Amino acid sequence: MKAINVALLGLGTVGKGVYQTINTHQERLRDITGCSVHVSTFLIEHPEKHATVNGTTVTDIRTITENPDIDIVFEAIVGKEPAFSYLKKCIQAGKHVITANKEMFAVHGKELRELARQHHVSIGYDATTAGGIPIIQMIQHVLQANNVLKVQAILNGTTNYILTEMRDQNAAFEDALQQAQQLGYAEADPTNDVEGFDAFYKLMILSELIYNEQPNWNDVKRIGITSISEKDIAENQLTNKRIKHIASIWKEDGRILAKVEPVSLPRDHPLYAIEGVDNAINIETDILGELTLKGPGAGALPTASAMIEDFCLIYSGKSQKEKSTVVVS
Amino acid sequence: MKAINVALLGLGTVGKGVYQTINTHQERLRDITGCSVHVSTFLIEHPEKHATVNGTTVTDIRTITENPDIDIVFEAIVGKEPAFSYLKKCIQAGKHVITANKEMFAVHGKELRELARQHHVSIGYDATTAGGIPIIQMIQHVLQANNVLKVQAILNGTTNYILTEMRDQNAAFEDALQQAQQLGYAEADPTNDVEGFDAFYKLMILSELIYNEQPNWNDVKRIGITSISEKDIAENQLTNKRIKHIASIWKEDGRILAKVEPVSLPRDHPLYAIEGVDNAINIETDILGELTLKGPGAGALPTASAMIEDFCLIYSGKSQKEKSTVVVS
Repeated sequence: MKAINVALLGLGTVGKGVYQTINTHQERLRDITGCSVHVSTFLIEHPEKHATVNGTTVTDIRTITENPDIDIVFEAIVGKEPAFSYLKKCIQAGKHVITANKEMFAVHGKELRELARQHHVSIGYDATTAGGIPIIQMIQHVLQANNVLKVQAILNGTTNYILTEMRDQNAAFEDALQQAQQLGYAEADPTNDVEGFDAFYKLMILSELIYNEQPNWNDVKRIGITSISEKDIAENQLTNKRIKHIASIWKEDGRILAKVEPVSLPRDHPLYAIEGVDNAINIETDILGELTLKGPGAGALPTASAMIEDFCLIYSGKSQKEKSTVVVS
Repeated sequence: MKAINVALLGLGTVGKGVYQTINTHQERLRDITGCSVHVSTFLIEHPEKHATVNGTTVTDIRTITENPDIDIVFEAIVGKEPAFSYLKKCIQAGKHVITANKEMFAVHGKELRELARQHHVSIGYDATTAGGIPIIQMIQHVLQANNVLKVQAILNGTTNYILTEMRDQNAAFEDALQQAQQLGYAEADPTNDVEGFDAFYKLMILSELIYNEQPNWNDVKRIGITSISEKDIAENQLTNKRIKHIASIWKEDGRILAKVEPVSLPRDHPLYAIEGVDNAINIETDILGELTLKGPGAGALPTASAMIEDFCLIYSGKSQKEKSTVVVS
């Protein structure tokens, strides 16, 4: 049986989730791809820390790009570099790539997609946006005829958790944040989440997917949740509203408009009932109407799920662009 | 430019929605398929009633099966027959088919899928289940690696509307039903909806998609909403619960278990907040966790959306089963 050899860049929470899932789902992946799937190579900064993995550990990306046996590269590194340079080299070496790196992809996604097209390889990035919710594949493959008119979304689980706690437990922002940190939902430096940068990156990725371009970043209002007080929450409660941190994007007069900000939602809003660390996306389209997806916005397994579903679409031939007249579903 | 010629069976609410959408989305369909898309032939019982359509109206299915220029057939007829016989003949004549007919597909879906496989054509049936929500394509293409452990769903908009009205307006079942009928949400004979047959058919279609088989129909508990009283609703209100009509399916000890029945849902249940004529599906999987989709469960355009997205998947080659090593997404 033909084998698909995978290289994994990074072995943090997400990387471990990918490795574990490929191992636990051997049979299923074999059914889908017709091949056996192995993680053969791990690129990690400190190989001595990861004695338990079953494969070659390397520190130099060239070991991967120059190895013709490696078919596909999963990237689960934090931060723009060296992730971007690594993926660029992998694509140039003719390897499919799958990334979970939102900040990097918000900045370099267009270039990487173009590079992948030139090198006839696939690039999967569903894990960059809304964790396990397969929103990228959904818009790309399942909502092709529909024009997306507007997206409103809760794209950051940390801020949604904090806002939920502030309301449910009458907690102050600082206390809710501290609790989120204790539970591992927020980083020691929470700026990226609570100031809305994380949601902003994801929104820019959605913009490029839907409109094939991003708005000028300076034109996008980005307000975090740090200034929301217990009084704000209480006042919203009185009128049966909830403050949610909403990322939205739509087009007006041919121009892309986007913003990330706290919004008071009435009870009948599709994002009103989204609680805790969940993410949700409401898509308004011209044929279907409104569709809302809700699911886990982060975590090792949900993120691994998105990456491995990207993998399955690549190897089951379903992301193939060429038209076929004889098709069986 | 190559043309794709469509035949449309039935020109009721759904048929008209399909016809209208193909006409309004000419440019987009051309971009997706690389072809111009025309509805060239209409099979309708009373052609004299539909003088306004632009194409050939016929009453004999052979006019379609024997016409080599017709590539694909959209079926929007009510009831098992003649829909099943028609689709069978179309598939045997080498034409792709797309259906919105849930009762027919719950009974004959397996046979039609097998027949399509033999004749190397595609069969699209996303419109049979949950209206515009692309649940079939989602499970088929975007959740391939994930094992679906359990599905809980609101699959009938009529009953959900009635239950919502009973609670919100303190209405008796009969009054809420009458209002649903006046608004066109319920048929003159509402049995199919309020006794749970409609939800049951959709659940059986999901069963076959997920487990590749259906449970014995006699083993599936199916309880409608006709016996729910104002007192039941009020008692649930007191404990912050809501009665919803839930279709669920899961496996236990290798056996498929399924039921359709009213359930008291607590506030934190993912289907608690689904109101009015909306449908929603909560899927529990082994990698991702829980994913919920919410959207319009019926209506001309949502149903047309599901059918036309099936069409796009067929003609963009994305439902192709054959493995491809060179793929670009």
